[in-house]
Amino acid sequence: MSRKDYMRLAFALAKKGLNNTGSNPMVGAVLVKNGLIIGKGYHVEFGGLHAEANAIKDAERKGFSVKNAKLFVTLEPCSHVKKKTPPCSHLIVEKGIKEVFIGMKDPNKKVNGKGIRFLKKYNIKTTVLDYKIENEELNKGFISLMKTKRPYVTLKICSSMDGKIYNLENPKESIGDKIQLQHANKLRKNYDGILVGINTVLKDNPRLDYRGPKIKSYSQPRPIILDSKLRIPINSKVISENNKPIIFTQETSSKRKIEILMKLGCEIIIIKAMKPKEILLRLASLNLQRILIEGGGEIFSSFLASKFWNELIIYYSPKFLGRSGLALTQHLSNQFLVKNKYSITTKKIGRSLMLRIN
Amino acid sequence: MSRKDYMRLAFALAKKGLNNTGSNPMVGAVLVKNGLIIGKGYHVEFGGLHAEANAIKDAERKGFSVKNAKLFVTLEPCSHVKKKTPPCSHLIVEKGIKEVFIGMKDPNKKVNGKGIRFLKKYNIKTTVLDYKIENEELNKGFISLMKTKRPYVTLKICSSMDGKIYNLENPKESIGDKIQLQHANKLRKNYDGILVGINTVLKDNPRLDYRGPKIKSYSQPRPIILDSKLRIPINSKVISENNKPIIFTQETSSKRKIEILMKLGCEIIIIKAMKPKEILLRLASLNLQRILIEGGGEIFSSFLASKFWNELIIYYSPKFLGRSGLALTQHLSNQFLVKNKYSITTKKIGRSLMLRIN
Repeated sequence: MSRKDYMRLAFALAKKGLNNTGSNPMVGAVLVKNGLIIGKGYHVEFGGLHAEANAIKDAERKGFSVKNAKLFVTLEPCSHVKKKTPPCSHLIVEKGIKEVFIGMKDPNKKVNGKGIRFLKKYNIKTTVLDYKIENEELNKGFISLMKTKRPYVTLKICSSMDGKIYNLENPKESIGDKIQLQHANKLRKNYDGILVGINTVLKDNPRLDYRGPKIKSYSQPRPIILDSKLRIPINSKVISENNKPIIFTQETSSKRKIEILMKLGCEIIIIKAMKPKEILLRLASLNLQRILIEGGGEIFSSFLASKFWNELIIYYSPKFLGRSGLALTQHLSNQFLVKNKYSITTKKIGRSLMLRIN
Repeated sequence: MSRKDYMRLAFALAKKGLNNTGSNPMVGAVLVKNGLIIGKGYHVEFGGLHAEANAIKDAERKGFSVKNAKLFVTLEPCSHVKKKTPPCSHLIVEKGIKEVFIGMKDPNKKVNGKGIRFLKKYNIKTTVLDYKIENEELNKGFISLMKTKRPYVTLKICSSMDGKIYNLENPKESIGDKIQLQHANKLRKNYDGILVGINTVLKDNPRLDYRGPKIKSYSQPRPIILDSKLRIPINSKVISENNKPIIFTQETSSKRKIEILMKLGCEIIIIKAMKPKEILLRLASLNLQRILIEGGGEIFSSFLASKFWNELIIYYSPKFLGRSGLALTQHLSNQFLVKNKYSITTKKIGRSLMLRIN
């Protein structure tokens, strides 16, 4: 195996931390000695051991000494001492690891380079490889939180080819077909929160979970419902699925309902106005890194106009609804121009068309 | 040069007949003798010589004898004698041409194979090559006329990403950008009629012509205006451009205006109801093979719903107009599903997205 292979493995490990690393980045690490992988680790959950420490623990548990091993780690080992766990760069030195390959310097400018300097001070050979793109993709949520104090936000909706998101004459019929719906469900796997408006809950009673492969080892995203008047039925699937739903509301008088919802595992956030910025700051404070906003139209329009989004996905389904359809942007009062700073790409998903702006 | 090269040249020649072959297909022909191209020809215009005859004439004009030459022709030479010009298969025999390569049998089932049989009867070596796809693309208008008695129809419109075709708050602003507009103009080159509604004429005063390269040798498409109340201003650009505009109207009382319009070179077609089928049959009777329908929304919707179209092109421009926009399908009363028999493809045109359904 080459450096590239070890690094690919480290990234695959890192991804396992999805939805559980809180305000920390996802990181993976691989220990190699005499061409043999002796330890693998990743940052499993917020507050837990870092990837490097877990890889060392894994190797030692199997009876290997990590002395003189090579370490492959997706992100620069930490060096700050005021933390829940001992800094990884110190641990690497202490354990006698011989050489370290790093995917990217810590994106936090205040601390980056410090871990590497510490390693070099102790004569550990340290090489920074170019895995910036991979890290930015993996940790886009973490990076957004760090830079903007808001989660990484994807706006997603399915529309007909004439911009309609709902068939008024046949409300039970979904706009997308099976292949499109499966694709959209797979998207959820990369988010730790799925946000919808109360009307979507009342109309569709969705579970808002991910139902694809590898579901067992996977931590479901948290449903987030914007419900100003607290109309959510307590028997909604989104509550009974038990994925720690978050409900934003402006309703404070229904103490009794709030109590019941809390007992059912819901987190209730009282908010003055349902403004995108305020909602996203509150979600950031709950350590949600990546939010997928799934509509409906009113929420789509208000988040689109707010510009507090990183990515926009529209699936265009091969139909024209005409006057039978509800317009995607009936709540958008001013036009929104997709400026040149955004990239625009498309992909065929079955017979639908996926537009991606980011 | 190989057979392929000669055939490619024959197709390039055929295309020069665009907009002028009336109810005939476009056909090109190349005569080769001792590895030298001695004659080139195409069907220049309805009623004129066929491609084969023109190629022979070209060779003879240059002083070559076509005896024992090889002929490459895009479509099967004709054999029917009741025509304006002598049948090409007879001419080929008469001139002593040795061998004939044919791109495709005549698509008209009533006559196909007859030209080939005639040639074989006179011991002329005849090979049918596989240029069906190229012929179908080149002669889609002719094929449509023959099969359905209607021209080949392309519906084209430019929309925002939320399905709006007109900015109500800023009517002067076009939905598409320069690159999109240029691309759409280039489309016109392949049509012999450009159809719009009177509102488009009143609002935009368009020239409805092709303004791209190679314009000199090119025959402009005819503007077609649906104008039930005959509101067209006599100083409209579409009239002064002098491209033989066709005006469909239900208004019969304005005799004076009809006279003036006819003097200005317009063809006036009185029609009972502005129905897509009726309009297309009338255009077919004028030998228009390929019609590009450019809107606006009402015409788009009525032709879309009629199903009398072969191809649909929507340019999605990177903007969301929301409530400031006029909906593409505000006149579409029933939903239109794009069934599986249609192919759906997309292409990036600058920052716009071109959707093609055919």
